[in-house]
Amino acid sequence: MKYTRSLSVLAGAMALSTVAGVAQERLQINLMPMPSEISFGTGSLSLASTFAVETPGTHDARLEGAIGRAVRRLDFAAGLRHAGAGVVPGTKLVVKVQSPGEAVQSLNEDETYTLEVTSTGAEIDAATDVGAMHGLETLIQLVQPSGEGYAIPAVHIHDTPRFRWRGLMVDCGRHFEPVPVLKRTLDGMAAVKLNVFHWHLTEDQGFRIESKIYPKLTEKGSDGLFYTQQDAREIVAYARDRGIRVVPEFEMPGHSTAWLVAYPEMSSGTVPDGIRREFGVSNYAVDPTRDETYAFVDKFLGEMAEIFPDTYVHIGGDESPAPDWKTNPRIVAFMKKHDLKDNEALQAYFNTRVLKTVMRLHKHMMGWDEVLTPGLPKDVVVQSWRGTASLVKGAKLGYQGVLSAPYYLDGMRPASVHYLADPLPSDADVTPEQRKLILGGEVTMWAEQLSERTIDSRIWPRTAAVAERFWSPENLRDVDDMYRRLERVSIELEGLGLTHLQSGDAGLRELARTEQIDALRTFASALEPVSFGERYKAQRTDQLTSLDRFVDAVRPDPPTKHWFEMLTKQFLANPTGDATDRAQMEAWLTRLSSTVPEVQRQMKASPRLNDAALRATQMVKLTQTGKDALNYLATGQKAPAGWKAKQLDLIAEAQKPSAIVRFTFIAALTDLVKAVSE
Amino acid sequence: MKYTRSLSVLAGAMALSTVAGVAQERLQINLMPMPSEISFGTGSLSLASTFAVETPGTHDARLEGAIGRAVRRLDFAAGLRHAGAGVVPGTKLVVKVQSPGEAVQSLNEDETYTLEVTSTGAEIDAATDVGAMHGLETLIQLVQPSGEGYAIPAVHIHDTPRFRWRGLMVDCGRHFEPVPVLKRTLDGMAAVKLNVFHWHLTEDQGFRIESKIYPKLTEKGSDGLFYTQQDAREIVAYARDRGIRVVPEFEMPGHSTAWLVAYPEMSSGTVPDGIRREFGVSNYAVDPTRDETYAFVDKFLGEMAEIFPDTYVHIGGDESPAPDWKTNPRIVAFMKKHDLKDNEALQAYFNTRVLKTVMRLHKHMMGWDEVLTPGLPKDVVVQSWRGTASLVKGAKLGYQGVLSAPYYLDGMRPASVHYLADPLPSDADVTPEQRKLILGGEVTMWAEQLSERTIDSRIWPRTAAVAERFWSPENLRDVDDMYRRLERVSIELEGLGLTHLQSGDAGLRELARTEQIDALRTFASALEPVSFGERYKAQRTDQLTSLDRFVDAVRPDPPTKHWFEMLTKQFLANPTGDATDRAQMEAWLTRLSSTVPEVQRQMKASPRLNDAALRATQMVKLTQTGKDALNYLATGQKAPAGWKAKQLDLIAEAQKPSAIVRFTFIAALTDLVKAVSE
Repeated sequence: MKYTRSLSVLAGAMALSTVAGVAQERLQINLMPMPSEISFGTGSLSLASTFAVETPGTHDARLEGAIGRAVRRLDFAAGLRHAGAGVVPGTKLVVKVQSPGEAVQSLNEDETYTLEVTSTGAEIDAATDVGAMHGLETLIQLVQPSGEGYAIPAVHIHDTPRFRWRGLMVDCGRHFEPVPVLKRTLDGMAAVKLNVFHWHLTEDQGFRIESKIYPKLTEKGSDGLFYTQQDAREIVAYARDRGIRVVPEFEMPGHSTAWLVAYPEMSSGTVPDGIRREFGVSNYAVDPTRDETYAFVDKFLGEMAEIFPDTYVHIGGDESPAPDWKTNPRIVAFMKKHDLKDNEALQAYFNTRVLKTVMRLHKHMMGWDEVLTPGLPKDVVVQSWRGTASLVKGAKLGYQGVLSAPYYLDGMRPASVHYLADPLPSDADVTPEQRKLILGGEVTMWAEQLSERTIDSRIWPRTAAVAERFWSPENLRDVDDMYRRLERVSIELEGLGLTHLQSGDAGLRELARTEQIDALRTFASALEPVSFGERYKAQRTDQLTSLDRFVDAVRPDPPTKHWFEMLTKQFLANPTGDATDRAQMEAWLTRLSSTVPEVQRQMKASPRLNDAALRATQMVKLTQTGKDALNYLATGQKAPAGWKAKQLDLIAEAQKPSAIVRFTFIAALTDLVKAVSE
Repeated sequence: MKYTRSLSVLAGAMALSTVAGVAQERLQINLMPMPSEISFGTGSLSLASTFAVETPGTHDARLEGAIGRAVRRLDFAAGLRHAGAGVVPGTKLVVKVQSPGEAVQSLNEDETYTLEVTSTGAEIDAATDVGAMHGLETLIQLVQPSGEGYAIPAVHIHDTPRFRWRGLMVDCGRHFEPVPVLKRTLDGMAAVKLNVFHWHLTEDQGFRIESKIYPKLTEKGSDGLFYTQQDAREIVAYARDRGIRVVPEFEMPGHSTAWLVAYPEMSSGTVPDGIRREFGVSNYAVDPTRDETYAFVDKFLGEMAEIFPDTYVHIGGDESPAPDWKTNPRIVAFMKKHDLKDNEALQAYFNTRVLKTVMRLHKHMMGWDEVLTPGLPKDVVVQSWRGTASLVKGAKLGYQGVLSAPYYLDGMRPASVHYLADPLPSDADVTPEQRKLILGGEVTMWAEQLSERTIDSRIWPRTAAVAERFWSPENLRDVDDMYRRLERVSIELEGLGLTHLQSGDAGLRELARTEQIDALRTFASALEPVSFGERYKAQRTDQLTSLDRFVDAVRPDPPTKHWFEMLTKQFLANPTGDATDRAQMEAWLTRLSSTVPEVQRQMKASPRLNDAALRATQMVKLTQTGKDALNYLATGQKAPAGWKAKQLDLIAEAQKPSAIVRFTFIAALTDLVKAVSE
């Protein structure tokens, strides 16, 4: 398939059962995640007036709410007036559910739905409210221009998720995120059918949830930035209204500095002198040898269970070297007495005792890889940040698992990489029984370098691609079509209030101190943030770093990245015969280069922007290299001897760290240069 | 002064006491509102590390909060690390207040502050927390690039507002605005030193505040879109923390359809069959002849007084034709009995009785123009939507007044028009005593055609210009310099979370269904919304209209409007000798024109966008006219006979309504054409 940005493109990778009728010509399948089964009928449902909704069956008020919101979005997308006096709803929509679904949504909630659209109306059938809500999101994504107005193609969809656990973890410990940010995140999750919001609430850098029993946790451990219990209840209700579970995480025994700031008497020996500002593994740990610790945990988790009804509670459990456990005589003696040979054994002891509380609360315990220690009860779910191998190992031992390793957004990798990482490929070395233990996956958004301004552009739209991986058939792996659909979903997400497409411009205006950012915007669109690790190395970020640099105004994997790679691939397949792609590539390189004088002028006037001065110089050189390469390749001419080596040096130079951003087109450029003959 | 967008410009209009020293060269005075007195010292305060703050004097916790937020913003603006372990604050900032200020901020709150910046530190002295907060906002606006970093020029400012009442009214009745929208609005208000948030809470189209005594008001009258009492308390607290009073408005006896939907027994006869969706004056009115009405009002206002501590309560009182009062026999009899000769007299009777409750609550009543009826007690404040004449008339009769007529944002007029409208020019025909009765002014944001997506771009940045009118000396009237500073303030406001510079792009992406909006964005930047009235005429908007058109993605008075007018003025002063301005103008016109092919292509693919198709054709013609005119004028050539008439026809054609948007450059273009000789 040729990638033509401006043309309607038929659905790519999926083997669509039937694509019939005249509508086909203009048909765009913009669904994400793609449904498990889809077939097309003839014609389409023309959207000439707002929806007359019928809701037979037994459902909760939340379904009415979801329908109300969906109809508003449909009205908006199709330019329709909302229902009310003087407006007669005309487009028929039936939403039929068998039951509201579980009182507390669990892993076993039936999320299946059927959506039937004909030229006379649409009907969603689902076992539960949650399934019906998924159907509504699909319906919205199907709206498309048709003649003078809008329509939904006639379609039959039967859809059910591949994995039951499809999560997004947001770290609100290292940097706090206000409630409205989380609400719009939940809206985005619902749009792409994610169903678990994993709320990382405590960290070395901050204890973010109010405890009325232990008020010092936030008084001393949060810099005043925390969620009240009412906030948390509001988030839980907001999530439930969107078919999303909320799994809270309370880190223990490590990542607990903020806790120990409030209650130093719980420490294993060394007492922190304040909230930890540096990131990385800390040495502070709660003392696993004292009964008071377990009394505390028991009361605290009991209090939290009143707020978080989900049957899973995440206790973290990762990265707790706890050197005190080797040196504190009381702890050493305790370990000896209980025959605990090392820290790992002591942590396993800790987990086992905490598990008692978790079980008393009728909940399941979840933890990161490290909780998987010998003797761990089988009821614990292991979340793997180490990788599939670790997950499979767990399954072989009989543990349920959720994969996160390939979905770390702070790696600033492209959507395609995350997209192609399967939680459980069909050729994985597991038995069918073990396969059942792999519940799904979770995208993780760690917050070392995250602010409320940048969070959306780091989460979205990449997470939508992963959401498809968690929901859709395994064999759906067409990256080009994924990117095509991702652009549409990205705009849909923006319509829900997410700021991922806007915050960059705001940052550029702030840096340049002007609204005149046309050149700067184009320039920035060919640069992306380096990974968390690289930024850390360059900037030594900690919690006190102002996240106000050029890097904070660019986004990972901007659309031009894949676009240019795609054109490059196409062009290299037939360099002397592909004038179209060449022209597009050359025009883009010329445009990038043309921004530089204005960008340099603005950089000189703005010290913070001037961090990226070297990137401006390099932009001129790299784009020239690209244009030269295109010219040699298209004309079939040879480059002068030494040209390639010189250009590759230049590329190597541009790959060195600078301004904590990197060029998006450097891999494609390298391919172009290498393809030139000398 | 030449208007050069990209150059540092010295402060324009104000007679600065002294501008001394080397810093002057790069000095930009970006303050808005301008202080009443400012003088410059030598050098500047270099911002090399975050602030070490001292707060001698007695103050509330809110000042600590305000300082904390201000320091964060200063850190961010200057690229500094925040204070904390390992970060030693170095820049000295003393914030000294004499007292926290009034427990309930009143008209008499002393808002004066002094700000002294030297090369070694900054000091704010104020009588109250509120004054000190104003000083902090000024300090932030003074930050500017300096060499490799940032600095604040050495300066002495003594600042006090010209008017005590500097308000913004937001109509949350006709369309609801969520709490986060209001919070960011309050942040914007604080940044430009506005001090009254007038909260229009009830309307024909919705009753937006929860009453626990009369729950049906929101159950039946709000479509579920209302502020809980806790929401309202949160807003009041948020405002107080920013030195802003909250004056709630509860409309009576008219504009009360939503109230009567809930309690039809209060109506004057005709009972509404539902929330009113149409806008404009309604005939429904509460019955002023029944004791039950006053009992209701008394209980309701009593309940509201618990939430809104401000000593003013706004009862609306406008636009209540109430035909029932002329036909309902009981009301007619009542009027006869009480010698009330017409509706106006009956409304005056109503106001007088409601005033009893207001006084019982130790509050002052406020109402729109119409409340000013013979016999109105002198304690009532009249808010004038009819104009200065009405305000002056009130003052002559001894009534306090607040001017709103020239500050209606939904007229979509340019900032300059609002800016130049003075609430009380020094030559106004009033005595010094009467002058004191004019408390100030209020910008009004009516919400007939407003959504949470568009509100920010309608309020900001224009309101910042009016805020200066309310605060700064009367003789500050340099429109060019105002626009120069407005661009900076606009970006500052965006940094506070306001979306006025972003929401347009989001709308364009939504309409075009793509991220590729470079052409469309430029095209849209030369178009602005027509006034509320014109839109109403063209679209017959009501509450059910989806506000999802091209017009909703453009903003009033975009910066290129004044810029092009300015260049035109400069060019016309010396057409054959001003190559610089001509080149800029021509380049812009060419660029606008060049967007059209791509814009037309996108319009064809997007029915909602296609509404503006005629504007695209006209764009080509008008820009060509502009370029031709520039050419004739610059070369001193005559145009062929009939050219002017033809171009003016074309301009007239383009001034006709289409797509509810208008060209921003049409007045300037007309001037250019008219200047051409034939």
